[in-house]
Amino acid sequence: MKFNNRNVVLGANVRLGKNVRIGDNTTIYDNVEIGDNTIIANDSVIGEPQHAYYFQGGYSNPATVIGANSFVRSHAIIYAGSTFGDNLNTGHRVTIREGAEFGTNCLISTLADIQGNATFGDYCRLYSNVHICEFSKLGNHVFIYPYTIFTNDSRPPSNHYMGPTVGDYTIIAVHSVVLPGVTIGSNCLIGANSVVSRDIPDFSFAVGSPAKVTRDIREIGSREKEGAQYPWMYNFERGMPWQGIGFDAWSQQQH
Amino acid sequence: MKFNNRNVVLGANVRLGKNVRIGDNTTIYDNVEIGDNTIIANDSVIGEPQHAYYFQGGYSNPATVIGANSFVRSHAIIYAGSTFGDNLNTGHRVTIREGAEFGTNCLISTLADIQGNATFGDYCRLYSNVHICEFSKLGNHVFIYPYTIFTNDSRPPSNHYMGPTVGDYTIIAVHSVVLPGVTIGSNCLIGANSVVSRDIPDFSFAVGSPAKVTRDIREIGSREKEGAQYPWMYNFERGMPWQGIGFDAWSQQQH
Amino acid sequence: MKFNNRNVVLGANVRLGKNVRIGDNTTIYDNVEIGDNTIIANDSVIGEPQHAYYFQGGYSNPATVIGANSFVRSHAIIYAGSTFGDNLNTGHRVTIREGAEFGTNCLISTLADIQGNATFGDYCRLYSNVHICEFSKLGNHVFIYPYTIFTNDSRPPSNHYMGPTVGDYTIIAVHSVVLPGVTIGSNCLIGANSVVSRDIPDFSFAVGSPAKVTRDIREIGSREKEGAQYPWMYNFERGMPWQGIGFDAWSQQQH
Ligand SMILES: CC(C)(COP(=O)(O)OP(=O)(O)OC[C@H]1O[C@@H](n2cnc3c(N)ncnc32)[C@H](O)[C@@H]1OP(=O)(O)O)[C@@H](O)C(=O)NCCC(=O)NCCS
Ligand SMILES: CC(C)(COP(=O)(O)OP(=O)(O)OC[C@H]1O[C@@H](n2cnc3c(N)ncnc32)[C@H](O)[C@@H]1OP(=O)(O)O)[C@@H](O)C(=O)NCCC(=O)NCCS
Ligand SMILES: CC(C)(COP(=O)(O)OP(=O)(O)OC[C@H]1O[C@@H](n2cnc3c(N)ncnc32)[C@H](O)[C@@H]1OP(=O)(O)O)[C@@H](O)C(=O)NCCC(=O)NCCS
Repeated sequence: MKFNNRNVVLGANVRLGKNVRIGDNTTIYDNVEIGDNTIIANDSVIGEPQHAYYFQGGYSNPATVIGANSFVRSHAIIYAGSTFGDNLNTGHRVTIREGAEFGTNCLISTLADIQGNATFGDYCRLYSNVHICEFSKLGNHVFIYPYTIFTNDSRPPSNHYMGPTVGDYTIIAVHSVVLPGVTIGSNCLIGANSVVSRDIPDFSFAVGSPAKVTRDIREIGSREKEGAQYPWMYNFERGMPWQGIGFDAWSQQQH
Repeated sequence: MKFNNRNVVLGANVRLGKNVRIGDNTTIYDNVEIGDNTIIANDSVIGEPQHAYYFQGGYSNPATVIGANSFVRSHAIIYAGSTFGDNLNTGHRVTIREGAEFGTNCLISTLADIQGNATFGDYCRLYSNVHICEFSKLGNHVFIYPYTIFTNDSRPPSNHYMGPTVGDYTIIAVHSVVLPGVTIGSNCLIGANSVVSRDIPDFSFAVGSPAKVTRDIREIGSREKEGAQYPWMYNFERGMPWQGIGFDAWSQQQH
Repeated sequence: MKFNNRNVVLGANVRLGKNVRIGDNTTIYDNVEIGDNTIIANDSVIGEPQHAYYFQGGYSNPATVIGANSFVRSHAIIYAGSTFGDNLNTGHRVTIREGAEFGTNCLISTLADIQGNATFGDYCRLYSNVHICEFSKLGNHVFIYPYTIFTNDSRPPSNHYMGPTVGDYTIIAVHSVVLPGVTIGSNCLIGANSVVSRDIPDFSFAVGSPAKVTRDIREIGSREKEGAQYPWMYNFERGMPWQGIGFDAWSQQQH
């Protein structure tokens, strides 16, 4: 149904791997490289030209790389100059500006708005309508739930930008705000509708506006079984690299 | 202006009622049924194939039903396997996943993100950018104002999902969060920017983060006249089935 | 790359200034006027017909005016009956309903949702996903940061709408709510995740839910230098009319 080569436009130097499928009404601009078996669904724009294209002569579109076995759902806008590791998975209508660097196996859900010039580790999950500002740095296995916002200008409007930093395995619940320059450690949980205005140490549960650390996350019980829910890697494996073998066995393989 | 049959694509077994109008650049996939006099505006995708379509052989698109006299504004993405009663009205760029069941006369505004596998009664109004998670259950005449989020995973990430439940005639103001498994009764009002973390009894006004019941809603005065604003059905009838006859007369007809 | 005149449709009485560029897959409906050197990027809809078009005979599309030297990024939906001064700049996927009146040099970022029937002064900046309700009145140089919502119905649902009013040079941080009928003075700063439920006097810093005035904004220090950050016009000039000459010199020219 989806792949009829109708109104598909490819620019110059577009390199498609084996078995790549491009949906109808999709445009891929110059200098885009797409890995094997990747699907770019319909009505998408990949390698969207940057601002200079419109206003400066001699513009050349920077390279865009989308890894193998990826699935970009319809109506994506991905700017030239961003890179994505293998197994990228997106929802619909994502907007991703230039200079975003994603590791492998990342999820970027429907309506997510990634401002570019930011780095993301492997296995990050950015859910619906997440807004990530420039100069953000996310570790591996960071999950950001819907409508959470990262900010970088603490005295707006100013010329002084400080992106937030988030450590590995940290989870931020829906509708939260991370204020400029804040560092959230690894293995943290931020409760829904929080404003994170101060640095948060590893293994903290913080909640509120401003967010206060109220517990060690290892004290939060599971809803599915006796015992602790966090670190969540012992209770959740779907789509994670430790699926089938367990987190400890996988961790040891990493060393 | 809108209906020129330009770049319109219809799949197999698409059944269009009388006087249905389809906008330019719209695609309707297999097994979609659209009732009489319905308008599907331009640049929409109706019957969007589910995940299995891309990765499994022998995929057959589940049935999608949109009732009569509906108006789906432009740039909608509606998945195969969702059903909508008559008189559906949407804003632009709605995204509705599979397994959503809507009653009649519902409104789903611009940028609303309905995750599917959820049920909605009649006359629900989901305003701009509302995000409804899977396993949510909304009654009749439930109004959800912009940027409110329903959640279903209380210890994210986990494998244990509990959708919120909302009773008839309940109103949730902007920018609120309903936490997993929460039941909000009927005839409630939730104030702007609240986090609803506990069940809320019928006829309550609750506000804050976490939301606390501060009053009976029947104590909240109207801004338009002497007396109480709630239950709102005595003060608001535009588009409601009691328009012209009053809520009590209509209620009696129901029995 | 962008301007190939592919699937571009122009209605009746579309007046394009000199050097206007229209992106592929864009439709411009009747009675739209676009100033010199303006770019309307791809996949946009300009002069979107109002509701009456679909249901009433004899519909005539109201005039839409976009000023000179403007840049409307892709996937915009701009309704008939809105006007924009020169140097408009938009992000992607903006939705702007009828009856919006924008001054010159305004920015409307990605996914902003402007409900129409609202007025905006010059040099306003509405960042990503801002939601502005009907009957809002914004002064000049008002900056509204992502996911902030303006509301107009204080006892929803009712028939009594009161839009918020915001004075010149006021800044509203991310994820805030402005409740119906509230007047925020000029030169204010509203902190992230606030609910503004009462009028706010000029030069106030207010924060919280409900927002309380905690300081005079002139007491808030800069992160870039010794001294105060606000009024911000002494510390920020990029894109502002006082760029290169300073705020005082520019102010004097205005008188
Ligand atoms: C962090 C979280 C798990 C804490 O919930 P919890 O452990 O069930 O909290 P408790 O039941 O121990 O509640 C302790 C108190 O904090 C309150 N509370 C819980 N979460 C809160 C929040 N996010 N904001 C404000 N108050 C909150 C509770 O109401 C309770 O107060 P009370 O006794 O006065 O009613 C929950 O807030 C949360 O954010 N869940 C994740 C939701 C989400 O985004 N899921 C992913 C998308 S589906
Ligand atoms: C629920 C609601 C109607 C309550 O407003 P209200 O009855 O006018 O409240 P009151 O005037 O009695 O205010 C009582 C106190 O609560 C505060 N307050 C009101 N709403 C609040 C909110 N949502 N969050 C935090 N505080 C709130 C008021 O500031 C006041 O405190 P104060 O005296 O210290 O200033 C209002 O909060 C609301 O949510 N309105 C709906 C907005 C909306 O989403 N409309 C639909 C979209 S247009
Ligand atoms: C208004 C603002 C600048 C105030 O920050 P600030 O001056 O750094 O505040 P302070 O450092 O003096 O903090 C005072 C207290 O208020 C808290 N606080 C700061 N901002 C808060 C907010 N928005 N909500 C709740 N609490 C807040 C701080 O945590 C601190 O409390 P603590 O000492 O108990 O931790 C900040 O809240 C803000 O909104 N920044 C703008 C973010 C933004 O939207 N930028 C534009 C988009 S990039």
